[in-house]
Amino acid sequence: MTGSTLKGKTVVVALGTILCASMAARAQSPSELNLMPLPAKVQAGNGAMKIDAGFGLSFAGYHEARLDRAGQRFLEQLHRQTGIVFPAGPEDAAKAALIVTTDHESKPVQELGEDESYTLDVTPTGAKLHAANPLGAMHGLQTFLQLVSITPDGFTVPAVSIQDQPRFPWRGLMIDVARHFIPLEVLKRNLDGMEAVKMNVFHWHLSENQGFRVESHKYPKLHEQGSDGLYYTQDQIRDLIAYAHDRGIRVVPEFDMPGHSTAWLVGYPEIASGPGPYQIDRTWGVFDPAMDPTSEKTYKFLNEFFAEMTKLFPDQFFHVGGDEVNGKEWDRNPSIQAYMKSHGLKNNEALQAYFSQRVQDLAVKHGKTPIGWDEILIPGVPKTIVIQSWRGAASLAAAAKQGYRGILSNGYYIDLGWSAARHYAVDPEGGAAASLTPEEKQRILGGESTMWSEFVNPENIDSRIWPRNAAIAERFWSPQATTDVASMYQRMESESSRLEWLGLTHRSYQRLMVRRMAGSASPDEFAALRNLTEALEPVKDYTREQNAAVEPTSQSPLNRVVDAVQPESEISRRFSEGVEQFLASSCKDAASAAQLRAQLASWAGNNARLQSLADHSSLVKEASPASAALSQAAELALGALDRLRQGLPLPDDEKRTQLDALNVFELQAHKAQLTLPARLAFQKLIEAASSGSACGPSNK
Amino acid sequence: MTGSTLKGKTVVVALGTILCASMAARAQSPSELNLMPLPAKVQAGNGAMKIDAGFGLSFAGYHEARLDRAGQRFLEQLHRQTGIVFPAGPEDAAKAALIVTTDHESKPVQELGEDESYTLDVTPTGAKLHAANPLGAMHGLQTFLQLVSITPDGFTVPAVSIQDQPRFPWRGLMIDVARHFIPLEVLKRNLDGMEAVKMNVFHWHLSENQGFRVESHKYPKLHEQGSDGLYYTQDQIRDLIAYAHDRGIRVVPEFDMPGHSTAWLVGYPEIASGPGPYQIDRTWGVFDPAMDPTSEKTYKFLNEFFAEMTKLFPDQFFHVGGDEVNGKEWDRNPSIQAYMKSHGLKNNEALQAYFSQRVQDLAVKHGKTPIGWDEILIPGVPKTIVIQSWRGAASLAAAAKQGYRGILSNGYYIDLGWSAARHYAVDPEGGAAASLTPEEKQRILGGESTMWSEFVNPENIDSRIWPRNAAIAERFWSPQATTDVASMYQRMESESSRLEWLGLTHRSYQRLMVRRMAGSASPDEFAALRNLTEALEPVKDYTREQNAAVEPTSQSPLNRVVDAVQPESEISRRFSEGVEQFLASSCKDAASAAQLRAQLASWAGNNARLQSLADHSSLVKEASPASAALSQAAELALGALDRLRQGLPLPDDEKRTQLDALNVFELQAHKAQLTLPARLAFQKLIEAASSGSACGPSNK
Repeated sequence: MTGSTLKGKTVVVALGTILCASMAARAQSPSELNLMPLPAKVQAGNGAMKIDAGFGLSFAGYHEARLDRAGQRFLEQLHRQTGIVFPAGPEDAAKAALIVTTDHESKPVQELGEDESYTLDVTPTGAKLHAANPLGAMHGLQTFLQLVSITPDGFTVPAVSIQDQPRFPWRGLMIDVARHFIPLEVLKRNLDGMEAVKMNVFHWHLSENQGFRVESHKYPKLHEQGSDGLYYTQDQIRDLIAYAHDRGIRVVPEFDMPGHSTAWLVGYPEIASGPGPYQIDRTWGVFDPAMDPTSEKTYKFLNEFFAEMTKLFPDQFFHVGGDEVNGKEWDRNPSIQAYMKSHGLKNNEALQAYFSQRVQDLAVKHGKTPIGWDEILIPGVPKTIVIQSWRGAASLAAAAKQGYRGILSNGYYIDLGWSAARHYAVDPEGGAAASLTPEEKQRILGGESTMWSEFVNPENIDSRIWPRNAAIAERFWSPQATTDVASMYQRMESESSRLEWLGLTHRSYQRLMVRRMAGSASPDEFAALRNLTEALEPVKDYTREQNAAVEPTSQSPLNRVVDAVQPESEISRRFSEGVEQFLASSCKDAASAAQLRAQLASWAGNNARLQSLADHSSLVKEASPASAALSQAAELALGALDRLRQGLPLPDDEKRTQLDALNVFELQAHKAQLTLPARLAFQKLIEAASSGSACGPSNK
Repeated sequence: MTGSTLKGKTVVVALGTILCASMAARAQSPSELNLMPLPAKVQAGNGAMKIDAGFGLSFAGYHEARLDRAGQRFLEQLHRQTGIVFPAGPEDAAKAALIVTTDHESKPVQELGEDESYTLDVTPTGAKLHAANPLGAMHGLQTFLQLVSITPDGFTVPAVSIQDQPRFPWRGLMIDVARHFIPLEVLKRNLDGMEAVKMNVFHWHLSENQGFRVESHKYPKLHEQGSDGLYYTQDQIRDLIAYAHDRGIRVVPEFDMPGHSTAWLVGYPEIASGPGPYQIDRTWGVFDPAMDPTSEKTYKFLNEFFAEMTKLFPDQFFHVGGDEVNGKEWDRNPSIQAYMKSHGLKNNEALQAYFSQRVQDLAVKHGKTPIGWDEILIPGVPKTIVIQSWRGAASLAAAAKQGYRGILSNGYYIDLGWSAARHYAVDPEGGAAASLTPEEKQRILGGESTMWSEFVNPENIDSRIWPRNAAIAERFWSPQATTDVASMYQRMESESSRLEWLGLTHRSYQRLMVRRMAGSASPDEFAALRNLTEALEPVKDYTREQNAAVEPTSQSPLNRVVDAVQPESEISRRFSEGVEQFLASSCKDAASAAQLRAQLASWAGNNARLQSLADHSSLVKEASPASAALSQAAELALGALDRLRQGLPLPDDEKRTQLDALNVFELQAHKAQLTLPARLAFQKLIEAASSGSACGPSNK
């Protein structure tokens, strides 16, 4: 709960809930302002400030070139959002509509826990943004951009007073550039997106079984033999780090070891635990190859490698991975077994702990603070290290109890295709962490969403990150009580539109992919394929790998319907909300019923419209079972809706048959690795139509 | 008429017409293959070649690095079109699925009239592309990419044998970067588009009253004071020229003089005809400022300026503009008047001719061939110059008769919002040029579409160029008999999709602009605004300037509905085609009637759906008259359609009232500078519904 003052009258509200207080100006409820993440405190004012060609901004107080660039970016973004042409050239500071005052510099290399707060005061005659340092100033500029909206009087910003600071100091997005290489410009537009939602850590997962993506001068065979030619030069890396720094974002590199390291071993088999030779892995999963923890060669190699990389990456933190070693190469290597025996290392866990300790020591020796996945927490390691928990809240809480700092990633695996609401419900201080002492809670630094890249490439990666990542960013920034899901979705969709101006392709990619599958289809066929694609979602969690007819590899084309659908179908979500609303009205809401009917009729008829295209395109053909499933399921739901409207009860046996059929349709969609996100809503309509339900005809 | 062999049987067909010959393989008629421009000769084969991950290409014969880059680009584009991942690394030349053989090099600086021909032979087992030089090889690669299509067997290329060469050697696109500055990356994606449709001249209109866009070391005040900071550095220009050269495109710079030159005079008033001082012009039109043709200072300035610019731009041709001098500064300047008198220059035309001669001499002195607008053709100038005709075919034919070479731009002014069909109907050898002798016709080198930039910016410029420019490119490349409009539209829409993979935003821009106007509208309101935007077009020709309530300037936001609509509405065009088809069926085609009815009902109901949004957004509000006009006009057409289907004749007086109303609706749309492109189709329905028409109820 956060104190918030509305129109001069102080009221205490849960930010993010729909405010019931009567308000003259519709747009001035914090949850209705299109702010994401929601600020800590918002106080609405009267009136609005007009944005026109006379608008300008100026900087006061502490100044640096980064602020000028931020100002330039701000004006460019404001131009894109409004279309208004702002005059170039120097602004008369005193006359600027937005005056940004900054007290002092931030650290030259951005540090964990720096002050990121700001205050923003907008009145009809001008706006003032104040921050301790450039980090807060840049956050405030993003908030201002989110406040701009079109009104009967053109573009305006409502009068408002905002005091804001983040809940957690570590708000990250991890991108795995190793399983599929992601070019620099794609990362850059995602950094733009992170800036927009105030995320401040880009965790760069740079090495894997499937690729080593950094140029190394010391060990050139790493990128030469481990990357298929797809790597970043050191100049490019410096460029990206500067780009991130300009946006208040730290860059934490990860070099995963001792497992997840096949690509290293292609060029340097001498540090491996197996006999080699090694090839870059082309499939997904956990593989046997691992570094040899018993060989001094390994540590000599890593020492020199760290010497190079810790200079390249200026951040204080250095991620050493440490996850998922299956130990098979260790089991099979007699010399490793002998070493373990002679050094009293009882099992592979102990061996990995030994490796982990040595590696952490190396990182510390080179001036860095190690961070790694849960596995690096071994008894006795210094309390300075940071644990990134893929295992979950219990693991994170246990670490905090022992005095270790941690960040949560379990629950924020955006590659799994969960809904934004499901991620949003996960709290870094939830679960086992909820019962920590305040002191222990301090050790939970925040969290990171993780974009593992088995099934993404530059074409569709944005759609797997955005807009859902904006909801996670809000979880990390906004007060804990910010939990209203309806408000979140409304603001997330609005932010999603804004993100498009930054060049993110999370919406636009889909039409291109549909066009590829459709070839030179007729407009109606094309529309039908879009209709299908907008309604479905990919199967969730790891079922895509499990259910694949042919084992997917890094060379598999990502050109199928499953690659084109959104992780969360907006149209299906809205349909499901409509069903809830209709049922809540005791089936009396006729307008809602008409909308549901139109949607269901469209889905029900869609498969027939798609038939000829399926006969002409192998890619459409593959999705035919899912297309048929959607239409058949919608047909059932349509029948149920009509019964509800006509007062004709659905007999119990028919209900059971229909619910069974729904399950069959869902499994049918799985054949193309797709799922019907509206099926629960279909089920609710069928259940409601049966006699005895709250809304059923028998209750009329 | 061009000889073309189909499935082994030689038949003579007009390429571009729908072939009636019976063919087993539907996709193998040249006009149904998605080729644009259509090749000179196409002979269909049997079967198809599969494109999968095993596909590769190799080069044989003459080799240069530019071909490798073209091959790389080809594979990237093929990846985008198909989603297939092609292996990196060197290809075994003998095993490659596509072998490209090039005989010899092309000129180091691309020249007018170089051999651009190629042959392409595709069989189910492999493809061979052969060209005299890299220019033809690159054209052939683009043809291959256009042949790739999705089929029941995945992506394939049909077996085919193509012999191709251009009709005209000069196939250009001019972009005016002066009235609105267009950044380098926007130009680059348009060069990609030009390569795709085999255009080979980028005419860069670099200076105007509103801006001077080139960095000059010799005269730095040109860009410093004449550009608002929006100009290209010389490094950027060299970069763009190299980019164009890599795509077989010449870059012809234009420095317009003695008029259209205010931006020069801001920094260098000493070469002006007026007293100065000068300011960059912010509005559109023909202005008074002009260089002083009577002052040797002017020629000394231009001599040194040409010395610098002719080195920067390697092309043989150097465009010196020459159009539209109103002469008012000359009339007002006593010293100019005295000079004219003493030198026997009778009028301003003679004065301009004198200037033009001196300027052409300077260009020649610096090793260039001058090109300019019609005005530069003055008696006695050497026959080497080239005339670019904005005035039209008569002017061009007259020049050709006198022995001058020329290119046609009149009829290809893509800023005027004409339909693709209207541009397509213009032939560089049409009109007065049709009666030229073969020798005279040789002097017609081709044409250029011209993108004048009063009302475009980086956001919507692509939509004003594409896809219509592809139809113009076909006019310049394909045999003269290629005139089937239905085939053109089908292939143009297909090419339009392909152009999107190159990053062109001619389709995607619209949703973003609609989103800006819609703000946080509901999905239904947003859909209604899209519906409106897709149905309308901007007013044509120069009426936007004439009808503006407020004089438009270079600072005017281009964020209105008129800026978001396509120059040619695809949906309205399809609707109009549907009306033709329905009427041609004597109103018996029920399926066609149902489609028309659905479209009309959607338009008729659209204004009501948009009302609440119009109340919330000033930008939507502005288009309200056009929105109402569309809905009201569609309502009338719907009534007519229903009468036709029901056999109820429309009384004559009602017909007259309705046709009058249509005109009123059209004028109403003009208030928002919009037009109803389907109005002629509406009119035809109303006329048909009246008694006595061919389709009317009285004839049933």
